[in-house]
Amino acid sequence: MQHQQQPPFAVLTPEATAASADPRDGAASASADVARYALGLGDDALVLAQRLGEWIAGAPELEEDVALGNIGLDVLGHARSLLTYAGSAWNTTEDELAYFRDEADFRCRQVFEQPNGDFARTVARQLVVSAYFAVLYRGLAGSADATLAAIAAKAAKEVAYHLDHSIIWLVRLALGTGESRRRMVAGLEATWPFVDELFADDPAADAVPDVAIAPATLREPFDALVLPALARAELPVPATPSARGGGRLGVHSEALGPLLAEMQVLARRHPGAVW
Amino acid sequence: MQHQQQPPFAVLTPEATAASADPRDGAASASADVARYALGLGDDALVLAQRLGEWIAGAPELEEDVALGNIGLDVLGHARSLLTYAGSAWNTTEDELAYFRDEADFRCRQVFEQPNGDFARTVARQLVVSAYFAVLYRGLAGSADATLAAIAAKAAKEVAYHLDHSIIWLVRLALGTGESRRRMVAGLEATWPFVDELFADDPAADAVPDVAIAPATLREPFDALVLPALARAELPVPATPSARGGGRLGVHSEALGPLLAEMQVLARRHPGAVW
Repeated sequence: MQHQQQPPFAVLTPEATAASADPRDGAASASADVARYALGLGDDALVLAQRLGEWIAGAPELEEDVALGNIGLDVLGHARSLLTYAGSAWNTTEDELAYFRDEADFRCRQVFEQPNGDFARTVARQLVVSAYFAVLYRGLAGSADATLAAIAAKAAKEVAYHLDHSIIWLVRLALGTGESRRRMVAGLEATWPFVDELFADDPAADAVPDVAIAPATLREPFDALVLPALARAELPVPATPSARGGGRLGVHSEALGPLLAEMQVLARRHPGAVW
Repeated sequence: MQHQQQPPFAVLTPEATAASADPRDGAASASADVARYALGLGDDALVLAQRLGEWIAGAPELEEDVALGNIGLDVLGHARSLLTYAGSAWNTTEDELAYFRDEADFRCRQVFEQPNGDFARTVARQLVVSAYFAVLYRGLAGSADATLAAIAAKAAKEVAYHLDHSIIWLVRLALGTGESRRRMVAGLEATWPFVDELFADDPAADAVPDVAIAPATLREPFDALVLPALARAELPVPATPSARGGGRLGVHSEALGPLLAEMQVLARRHPGAVW
């Protein structure tokens, strides 16, 4: 395998090397720089998928249980593709990357790890992340890295549907009852502090300028998707100050630790495959 | 709507009648007797789907997160079809049936409500319920009730895949390490007390003999699916005594209450649609 080297994090499982043959036999391996970029994108998707899975048992309508479950599984699929590709640079698997890294080694931006809150807050988070994914994957589909381009092209179609779904709920809640509007406003205010970070510098993207999309360039197309949706819902853009950010550097909000604990407990109890 | 009458349970939401137009405009309405039968089948599927949703955040492999999530969404789809059809007899919606009945009004057999336990215990439960669904829906696809027959024909194809998936894991864990085999044996022993109840009398089925499948007739085809799978896994049939049963009469194990609490909390906090 070309470019293989130590991953930039501790893999805790003792069988890490023994257990993992090339996770993508016959497929292209990522360079270490591309892998670092893919890892951040994969962590965003992985952490969000775990959050959405929490809804399967608790959405306010059975139809919405199904919808959020399906969105979660789509996003989990993106995470798996991205982490598998990242792992190809370090001879590690998607499962080792998901279950055997500690919190400070996760590279997700902080909006993805934010708690579900009530349904309106989940809708607000899903609006923001779906619009971000839509513009990111649309751009990345033209990447010089053929593997990332293929992953992004497939994901772009799926997240376009997720965005439509979020906008329908945004408008329905904002223009519904007084209570639903109050909650939608509060959900947006809870989510908005994490928006700026999505477009902040990412050293892993800077290192592969031909492959990655520079985050700052995504702000304008993101606004072009989100601001008209807020206008349709007759909602102001929240004026809340930005959170401090730093997810791509391993700085996380207090929400990530408990999420990882739940996600990783089973795999870690008996490291190295299923018992 | 023909045959419309009071449902055999209390619907707690004050807007129950106002909020619900016919949930299946233009579709066939169930008679009250058929509805009672469909309600039991729908509750089985609904409760199991909630349990499977709990796995999205915690399976031992990302691939298995996706698989259990997809199985859960399939089963939730069966629940929605069955509960919508049941509700057509009483002018109530799937959501009212799912979120606004109390525990004693749920008609699921007890195996479906059993906790996930570790992964092996979930595999054991999924083996049992998938084999049961497979023979039930195969028979019900020939029902004199065209709506139930159509729901069952679609579901039969999906649960056949779920059964294959369960058998693969059964064999993999049973013939894996000493630890995985010990857990698979324990998982089967925890599940087996609830098997006999699946084939016990169901008053709702007795009331519509042309429509329903008599539960006792499903035992032989069930055994024909499950016993060879246990043999392939080199596992004995557990000799654990049967639990007392009674799910179709509203008698449940202690596992159902907490499941319903989590499933219903959001809808009940603001009854009548989303806020």
